[in-house]
Amino acid sequence: MNEVRREKLIAVYRDGLLENTLPFWLPRCVDEEQGGFMIARDRDGSLLDTDKGMWQQGRFTWLLATLYNTVEPRAEWLAAARHGLEFIERHGFDADGQMWFHVTREGKPIRKRRYFFTETFAAIAYAACAKATGEAALEDRAREIYALAKVGFAAGANPKFTDVRPTKGMGAPMISLATAQEMRACLGDDSFNADIDACIGEIQRDFVKPDLECVMETVGPNGEVLDHFDGRLLNPGHAIEGAWFILNEARHRGNDPALIELGCNMLDWMWVRGWDEEHGGIFYFRDVHCKPVQEYWHDMKFWWPHNETILATLLAHLLTGEDRYESMHRQVHDWSYAHFPDAEHGEWYGYLHRDGRVSVTLKGNLWKGPFHLPRMQLLAWQWLADSSD
Amino acid sequence: MNEVRREKLIAVYRDGLLENTLPFWLPRCVDEEQGGFMIARDRDGSLLDTDKGMWQQGRFTWLLATLYNTVEPRAEWLAAARHGLEFIERHGFDADGQMWFHVTREGKPIRKRRYFFTETFAAIAYAACAKATGEAALEDRAREIYALAKVGFAAGANPKFTDVRPTKGMGAPMISLATAQEMRACLGDDSFNADIDACIGEIQRDFVKPDLECVMETVGPNGEVLDHFDGRLLNPGHAIEGAWFILNEARHRGNDPALIELGCNMLDWMWVRGWDEEHGGIFYFRDVHCKPVQEYWHDMKFWWPHNETILATLLAHLLTGEDRYESMHRQVHDWSYAHFPDAEHGEWYGYLHRDGRVSVTLKGNLWKGPFHLPRMQLLAWQWLADSSD
Repeated sequence: MNEVRREKLIAVYRDGLLENTLPFWLPRCVDEEQGGFMIARDRDGSLLDTDKGMWQQGRFTWLLATLYNTVEPRAEWLAAARHGLEFIERHGFDADGQMWFHVTREGKPIRKRRYFFTETFAAIAYAACAKATGEAALEDRAREIYALAKVGFAAGANPKFTDVRPTKGMGAPMISLATAQEMRACLGDDSFNADIDACIGEIQRDFVKPDLECVMETVGPNGEVLDHFDGRLLNPGHAIEGAWFILNEARHRGNDPALIELGCNMLDWMWVRGWDEEHGGIFYFRDVHCKPVQEYWHDMKFWWPHNETILATLLAHLLTGEDRYESMHRQVHDWSYAHFPDAEHGEWYGYLHRDGRVSVTLKGNLWKGPFHLPRMQLLAWQWLADSSD
Repeated sequence: MNEVRREKLIAVYRDGLLENTLPFWLPRCVDEEQGGFMIARDRDGSLLDTDKGMWQQGRFTWLLATLYNTVEPRAEWLAAARHGLEFIERHGFDADGQMWFHVTREGKPIRKRRYFFTETFAAIAYAACAKATGEAALEDRAREIYALAKVGFAAGANPKFTDVRPTKGMGAPMISLATAQEMRACLGDDSFNADIDACIGEIQRDFVKPDLECVMETVGPNGEVLDHFDGRLLNPGHAIEGAWFILNEARHRGNDPALIELGCNMLDWMWVRGWDEEHGGIFYFRDVHCKPVQEYWHDMKFWWPHNETILATLLAHLLTGEDRYESMHRQVHDWSYAHFPDAEHGEWYGYLHRDGRVSVTLKGNLWKGPFHLPRMQLLAWQWLADSSD
């Protein structure tokens, strides 16, 4: 990548983060009356729902503390992170220690889910705040919640189903990997490497299929490919997100060649599976044998697979120097920036039709909030800035 | 409706049922080896998944026995209905009496759900087979499963959620209403009228909102409109299906004017909410205040709302004689027949994009099977034939 392009991209990501994405959410979403953040916003920032999703409380708290830790120590970022953490601490946990998924504006619980994703987002929120403040109690809490999620994921079985056809999802080792990486970074504790190795080992052993040239989303307990709707289902954006988690680990380990090969294979294969040759962009779901997919939104273009693919292609280029990754990066970057940003009100739309038309104007809900887009902007900026060293 | 149009429509529905829809499924989907029906089919009838959804086992069994009872006593229809019922009896029930939702080809359980819809489809399957065969044991079983579903729906609370913001869905009184109507018809027992009255009463009291001119899909326990994503969500096709259940009750009760008014209001209001003025067809979801809808497939056109809207507009016309219902019927009939049928392989596609392009080619899965389309064809044919009397 030449210097002009590099500088231009740094400005797009950095200014996009600091002057477009963050100002959409701050101070708007801070609930001064009841604590936490009100994320469910329409395109102009108007409130669609006062309810609070705990994923977004944890993720935005993590983002704010991470900006404080890695960009600059702005007091308002730390104050907002503390504000988020207080709401999580006060209203995030059920009596059994597990976290709520969805609460009212006041923090009364509406719904708990039988997975441990909420806990992983809370763990990194506490860890990033521990780093920002140096408070040992926050570090202890981060470790406690991390341990809870680890036990939860290890228990494994999906309680919605009988044990007739056991399955496991790529989501568990992937989120566990990213969470352990963040814990290690924030707490400066290399003992998380064991968990990171275990997650990468499981992904490589059970989900990555060189013979099929793809990454499965759901497999049997020993990586069996199951010839049913759910077993055949591929989630290219998710697999590509996993690819950059692994490439980022390669980077952390002095450009470990085996991890670069693994991450690049995952990216290459799932790019072929996921890129829409007709309209551009990354499909949400595909079938491993190109059969019909049961999920209704299979061919829609969601914001987050594009954030993840921008990161994966960029990091693959920076680690390998290969031109083709620069051109894949340009391809997904250009398509994304041509379709997702809202030029009038800032931030990105989340949900486009296959051809790039906006399907729904909302900017936030229980699943979309200030996370994938600003994380992409922050990391891409940092990686590009570091690459000049 | 003039006689030429009436005769033409009878032919479309009758011949569509007997010469197009049924031959797609019979004998193809009958699993001679393991019993039951294999419904998960691609557009050409090829098998996509050997798994069996218990909704479809019950619904197709009901359809086959109902054809035997109401069209003509063809031995192959009764044999296939018995074949379905045997699989349901052998593999449909958990030890606690509740039914499985999803089983393997061999009938091993994969998943149970925390609602009682499967039970309602089994109850009408047993009831229709009881009528076809005169076997008292089948009638007993139908009553037993009906009672189980009734208790389940009455228990009400949705176990996914806490009791902080209790809600109830239109689905429970609607399916209970249709199930009780079918039980009454098959078993010749007017004592089901009490349940029917209770269901209609609940729909009218808690879900139908004259001030908003709409039918809510989810409300508080006393019909409160909840200003959150889920509370604002409208499902026009579902409400219009409820409208014809009520119009059909009006018809059963000698054209009861209060029920005709209720059903026609529901249809009129939800037609305005659901009809896509730009592309035609019925939207899947709308927001009561026209805000963004969270469900990704909100603007897609599914087959079943079109089946239900064809029935509701037709019955409204036959009951009231109003021209506008004939023209609404023509409008939804013409749009549906222009977009859903597969001219090459028969049956209908299930899932179209907003503009009518096919989103996915499958003809059957856990939710789509030989039910909404052939039920529409059968009832529309019968109603039109009866209307000449």
